[in-house]
Amino acid sequence: MSAKIPRSSDNDYTDAMIEERQRFLEGKSGAQLKHTKHFSFDPASMEGNCEHLFGVAQLPIGVAGPLVVNGEHAQGEFYVPMATIEGTLVASYNRGMRVIREAGGVTTTVVSEAMQRAPVFMFKNARDGRDFAQWLRDNFELLKAKAESTTSVGKLLEIEIYPNHNMVFTRFDYSTGDAAGQNMTGKATFVVCEWIRANYPKLRTYGLSGGLDTEKKTSFVNSLKGRGRKVTAEITLPKTVLENVLRTTPEQLRNSHGINTLAAYMSGASNNAAHPANGLAALFMATGQDMANIGEANQCSVYSYVTKAGDLYYSITLPALIMATFGGGTGLATQRECLELMGCYGKGKAYKLLEIAAGLVVAGELSLVSATRTDKETGTNEWVDAHEKLGRNR
Amino acid sequence: MSAKIPRSSDNDYTDAMIEERQRFLEGKSGAQLKHTKHFSFDPASMEGNCEHLFGVAQLPIGVAGPLVVNGEHAQGEFYVPMATIEGTLVASYNRGMRVIREAGGVTTTVVSEAMQRAPVFMFKNARDGRDFAQWLRDNFELLKAKAESTTSVGKLLEIEIYPNHNMVFTRFDYSTGDAAGQNMTGKATFVVCEWIRANYPKLRTYGLSGGLDTEKKTSFVNSLKGRGRKVTAEITLPKTVLENVLRTTPEQLRNSHGINTLAAYMSGASNNAAHPANGLAALFMATGQDMANIGEANQCSVYSYVTKAGDLYYSITLPALIMATFGGGTGLATQRECLELMGCYGKGKAYKLLEIAAGLVVAGELSLVSATRTDKETGTNEWVDAHEKLGRNR
Amino acid sequence: MSAKIPRSSDNDYTDAMIEERQRFLEGKSGAQLKHTKHFSFDPASMEGNCEHLFGVAQLPIGVAGPLVVNGEHAQGEFYVPMATIEGTLVASYNRGMRVIREAGGVTTTVVSEAMQRAPVFMFKNARDGRDFAQWLRDNFELLKAKAESTTSVGKLLEIEIYPNHNMVFTRFDYSTGDAAGQNMTGKATFVVCEWIRANYPKLRTYGLSGGLDTEKKTSFVNSLKGRGRKVTAEITLPKTVLENVLRTTPEQLRNSHGINTLAAYMSGASNNAAHPANGLAALFMATGQDMANIGEANQCSVYSYVTKAGDLYYSITLPALIMATFGGGTGLATQRECLELMGCYGKGKAYKLLEIAAGLVVAGELSLVSATRTDKETGTNEWVDAHEKLGRNR
Amino acid sequence: MSAKIPRSSDNDYTDAMIEERQRFLEGKSGAQLKHTKHFSFDPASMEGNCEHLFGVAQLPIGVAGPLVVNGEHAQGEFYVPMATIEGTLVASYNRGMRVIREAGGVTTTVVSEAMQRAPVFMFKNARDGRDFAQWLRDNFELLKAKAESTTSVGKLLEIEIYPNHNMVFTRFDYSTGDAAGQNMTGKATFVVCEWIRANYPKLRTYGLSGGLDTEKKTSFVNSLKGRGRKVTAEITLPKTVLENVLRTTPEQLRNSHGINTLAAYMSGASNNAAHPANGLAALFMATGQDMANIGEANQCSVYSYVTKAGDLYYSITLPALIMATFGGGTGLATQRECLELMGCYGKGKAYKLLEIAAGLVVAGELSLVSATRTDKETGTNEWVDAHEKLGRNR
Repeated sequence: MSAKIPRSSDNDYTDAMIEERQRFLEGKSGAQLKHTKHFSFDPASMEGNCEHLFGVAQLPIGVAGPLVVNGEHAQGEFYVPMATIEGTLVASYNRGMRVIREAGGVTTTVVSEAMQRAPVFMFKNARDGRDFAQWLRDNFELLKAKAESTTSVGKLLEIEIYPNHNMVFTRFDYSTGDAAGQNMTGKATFVVCEWIRANYPKLRTYGLSGGLDTEKKTSFVNSLKGRGRKVTAEITLPKTVLENVLRTTPEQLRNSHGINTLAAYMSGASNNAAHPANGLAALFMATGQDMANIGEANQCSVYSYVTKAGDLYYSITLPALIMATFGGGTGLATQRECLELMGCYGKGKAYKLLEIAAGLVVAGELSLVSATRTDKETGTNEWVDAHEKLGRNR
Repeated sequence: MSAKIPRSSDNDYTDAMIEERQRFLEGKSGAQLKHTKHFSFDPASMEGNCEHLFGVAQLPIGVAGPLVVNGEHAQGEFYVPMATIEGTLVASYNRGMRVIREAGGVTTTVVSEAMQRAPVFMFKNARDGRDFAQWLRDNFELLKAKAESTTSVGKLLEIEIYPNHNMVFTRFDYSTGDAAGQNMTGKATFVVCEWIRANYPKLRTYGLSGGLDTEKKTSFVNSLKGRGRKVTAEITLPKTVLENVLRTTPEQLRNSHGINTLAAYMSGASNNAAHPANGLAALFMATGQDMANIGEANQCSVYSYVTKAGDLYYSITLPALIMATFGGGTGLATQRECLELMGCYGKGKAYKLLEIAAGLVVAGELSLVSATRTDKETGTNEWVDAHEKLGRNR
Repeated sequence: MSAKIPRSSDNDYTDAMIEERQRFLEGKSGAQLKHTKHFSFDPASMEGNCEHLFGVAQLPIGVAGPLVVNGEHAQGEFYVPMATIEGTLVASYNRGMRVIREAGGVTTTVVSEAMQRAPVFMFKNARDGRDFAQWLRDNFELLKAKAESTTSVGKLLEIEIYPNHNMVFTRFDYSTGDAAGQNMTGKATFVVCEWIRANYPKLRTYGLSGGLDTEKKTSFVNSLKGRGRKVTAEITLPKTVLENVLRTTPEQLRNSHGINTLAAYMSGASNNAAHPANGLAALFMATGQDMANIGEANQCSVYSYVTKAGDLYYSITLPALIMATFGGGTGLATQRECLELMGCYGKGKAYKLLEIAAGLVVAGELSLVSATRTDKETGTNEWVDAHEKLGRNR
Repeated sequence: MSAKIPRSSDNDYTDAMIEERQRFLEGKSGAQLKHTKHFSFDPASMEGNCEHLFGVAQLPIGVAGPLVVNGEHAQGEFYVPMATIEGTLVASYNRGMRVIREAGGVTTTVVSEAMQRAPVFMFKNARDGRDFAQWLRDNFELLKAKAESTTSVGKLLEIEIYPNHNMVFTRFDYSTGDAAGQNMTGKATFVVCEWIRANYPKLRTYGLSGGLDTEKKTSFVNSLKGRGRKVTAEITLPKTVLENVLRTTPEQLRNSHGINTLAAYMSGASNNAAHPANGLAALFMATGQDMANIGEANQCSVYSYVTKAGDLYYSITLPALIMATFGGGTGLATQRECLELMGCYGKGKAYKLLEIAAGLVVAGELSLVSATRTDKETGTNEWVDAHEKLGRNR
């Protein structure tokens, strides 16, 4: 008979309950918990973030910067906290930020916004589905009102409609203010679906999550339509900066990007960049974002060309960036402090944080792309060397 | 003129340097760092994990279990630490583990192993590339010896060869023992490439990272050939367990999976499961894994069918699972303790941890798939309700 | 100095010009043209279909049927002409039609319609692009009027808008009446683009064909949004019919389809069916369709499940089916006759032809899926045997 | 009761039988068959190509050329027969061939060869599957001998092994000499599978066609591993030629290709070229190839860069080109003549034909890419104009 984890239906976040769970786990495993017990703040503040709480994970935070961002919401210099256990990562992003500084900053734009729920509606056959698809288009304003009655913040922007077989897959696209919005949109969409069930007799049944939200996954529907916010970061890299700082040329970076893109295209990779997930994960972890979103946020495309002036236009579009500055994990003790370091804590700061994140990704790309280049004269490879010196190259 | 982050080339991990950086950041931002300063262990132990260290991120860890695993390396009951800020997540995985227990456990298999470096070799034209491709095949044993001369652990298993245009893309596939191996394989492959450069006159140049490793990305080449370890978790769910515990039937789960798969297929989603990234991110964070790997680890396929006996065969294959039990972030204070809770710290434990991770993913799927089902009688939706009660449903 | 192909700017379709080209080619190659010279109709009728005309390709046409279609436009029994050089193909489709007959016919539905042109608009930066995207949404009615001023038939249904980097990719979606419409939509969209160029000063330049039409290619944007017409063919296969005619069961076909889908999903295949391109190519060739469209028309998804009654619901959705019954190659001598065999020649018949085509695909699937099954008792494989007997199994 | 198509089990290709079917179809449809009856050769020669034969489809064939090919098998000038009903197509390819001529010809290389059968093997669980995967590797030479015992031509080059869940998906890769080889490989693989079934007790069952051949579909496994033959066509386009003939520059074509590639990448298109399916379909139809293969043959990647000398390196790799010069439809009356025009009929000519086909694709790209460019001065668009003049722009 399996021993159940100790819990309390009254208040599961008391010190007593947490200690009971710690003892239970120590007893079961024979391990000694010492550091995981070391909360610097009241565990009760974690109610709503984590069930069966027994401890705290501690991860090192480094800082890179300043990152110069010419955004609409983020403007100026930012020192970016990055929580990571990967040696060389902070140093690499820091180097990329120097390139950005010397080029005058990275220009960032939140291009669109859409957080989804994606119910699927089932019918007897494709004709009933087709008719329902038209009904959805015809009744959008009504359904929008139903959805928005459940939330003071969320707005239903669009219902994407994809009939297939005897089903109609949809994506309900919302703007969600400062929150990441997965929950808000779930509730609003549920209410609409229930109303449809009561009022559309030919509907056989529906599933609240029909899969086309592609939550925490990369997908082509996200690549095309976006999820969360679609953010673009652009920079024009002067030829002289590339030569002096990165020891490369616009043409070389352009060709390197061409090869990366070919590799991504022929293998169906979720991005044609070098390592966007690295910087994003470090920033997400420092600032209390949902780490599982790295599963979708890593998707992006890089685009570049040599301008007539001989410089390099370089751009990254992240179609599925989901970040919050309020609620969720952002209010936890250390996470809030990291947001505050960038002036990004609280309501109304999400776009600012998104712009910093997109700029961060550019920094990482500029640094790594050039570092994997091998020096023909000396036969050394900067990237291997960096890991030898700074990291744990086993 | 931008202010540079304080650092020391001698020893950047002294308390003095860390404090200087903290003061610098507080000065720049006006924020007060309190909890991020709260190390419970010697910061110097983080050298090699994080540059420009200034603090520590603290995240709640809950526990789910016991997870009953019938693996080749993990056998028995495991209490799984999950670091997360997403309310309902631990509770949800915990519920799935109950289903697994009642079904007699989840069977896990590490199917294959291959950590990659993926150099690309450039030639004058496709004919030279084609000839080089054949030369690589003919000289595999020689190149293998070169690669393995650089590491006591890594073994070069295969060189995948993909000629394209005037280039030859490759993937050097290694087994890497207990380490995740990204660095080890980088070094070994670099040495081979340099040897090729010196000995194959028709080679114009090469890039150490040609993109086909698709590191920290999902891709079809990972789906097909695997990356890190490919792990399968299987379970046969008795009809009675599905009815009693999840209030569903084998046919319903099978059909639900059919719809998810269709959605994933038509949208090009990186998995046809519900939310594998959630459990993996929580376990990765608790145990010191590289969080950016969630970018690739979330890729998986679910496969199920109703057996002749009327039960549900249910299987998840994760083709790109990268986890370590030694080195990297696994030795940090709290991360090590979490590994120890499962008997997974240190050399020789990686396969055990991988099997637990794969079982964890199954638990999350079994719980969520059924929870998103709406009860036709009552008009309630368990998933929405759970977020209302446990989470921060804004 | 290369010899130029003989041609006439006055009238290139006279017998004299055609004969001159034939002599030229015979002289150059040493080959004797005999059958390619054998027009049964006036070559002048091919003006507008083929430049530098010198001969005629002759291909065998077989017939399969009757195919019982319960469509909205095609209703009843159809004998389907199939031009092919692949032995066993007509026989296989014919066998599938028997299954369909015994199941009472295949139900077909034209779900949606959209023929695309896909201009891309270039801007200085992503912000200008974002603003233009909004401007497109705000001015849709105006642009629609401009587009429709160029054609008596085409209607601009939607402008899909995909901002990316400093560009805005679009898809102009039209209904095109009886024509396939690639040319009509090209002209209408060109006029709109020129108007935009004259009236939107921040536009730097545009490309008429920005690539997102994914013409004559498969793509996820076609899978999601459709191209040409999206057509679904559904059938409920009674258990008894499957057993008696195909010697299989609903569960076996369902499981076989599950495996095919897994294979398609893990490899990124353009359909999870067995061989839709075969039947489509044969029908396209017989009826004067653009054969290059097989490049996109082969994309489809199969979906099936066992119903509560124990039968098999089986459905195929073809999202990018492009066929015409008027104009193009449909008026050529033999092609028109083949259309007439199905009552599908001329204006107003396109939907009827599309429904027959979708039903044909189902016939091919039902036949082949079961044929690749190996008989366990006898150790024979019907599919290999069929090729031995009927085809040219080299 | 449905009327069955008249057929004869003795000899279904006699004039009498064909006439009986013609009368039957005329009676059923009320249509008059006139031109489809017009065989210029003995219908009996079509036995093995088409069942239920009743007529012949006639399609116009134009010629483009000369195409200058610097291949290993095709060397010199070729006049390429193209059967098509799409106005402007032959003229467009012809224009591209002029560009190629002025650039000194297109260099073509058959890079690799592999025709597949793709059986899937089912087991009790993933562990049995994993062990079988290893057994396949260990017994490759034995299985190769079994396979090759069934054919005088085919050689088993590799067994690709993809374990997934409780199955092992495979691709048996063969070289097939002059034949396309789909049938030959089916038979050889069947014999191997049966031998495995008799000798590997843990095998539960297998399917001869497990789906990973992705026959007549595009896929990433084809993109990576190839199917049929992988062929690359390369050309270095001098700056002066681009300016004089196509009124464009290397940089402009390079940038245009960059945008096309981005569009293809973000939408998951099966190629990043403009219209490879057009030329391939026309050549396939003229020369008796299986038209359904356009479903897979259209997959390709374009790669280009500006060289140090300021010219444009331009390359297309077609990973799944399947063409024959012997057997199948190649021996039909008009098809054979078209092959003879290029000196490509009969055994030992397949590589030559493949090289011409790849060169043809390059011609089409060079022509269309530049034609879709709009002239800024005059506000005209060459591509729209060409369709106005030559085609049937409805």
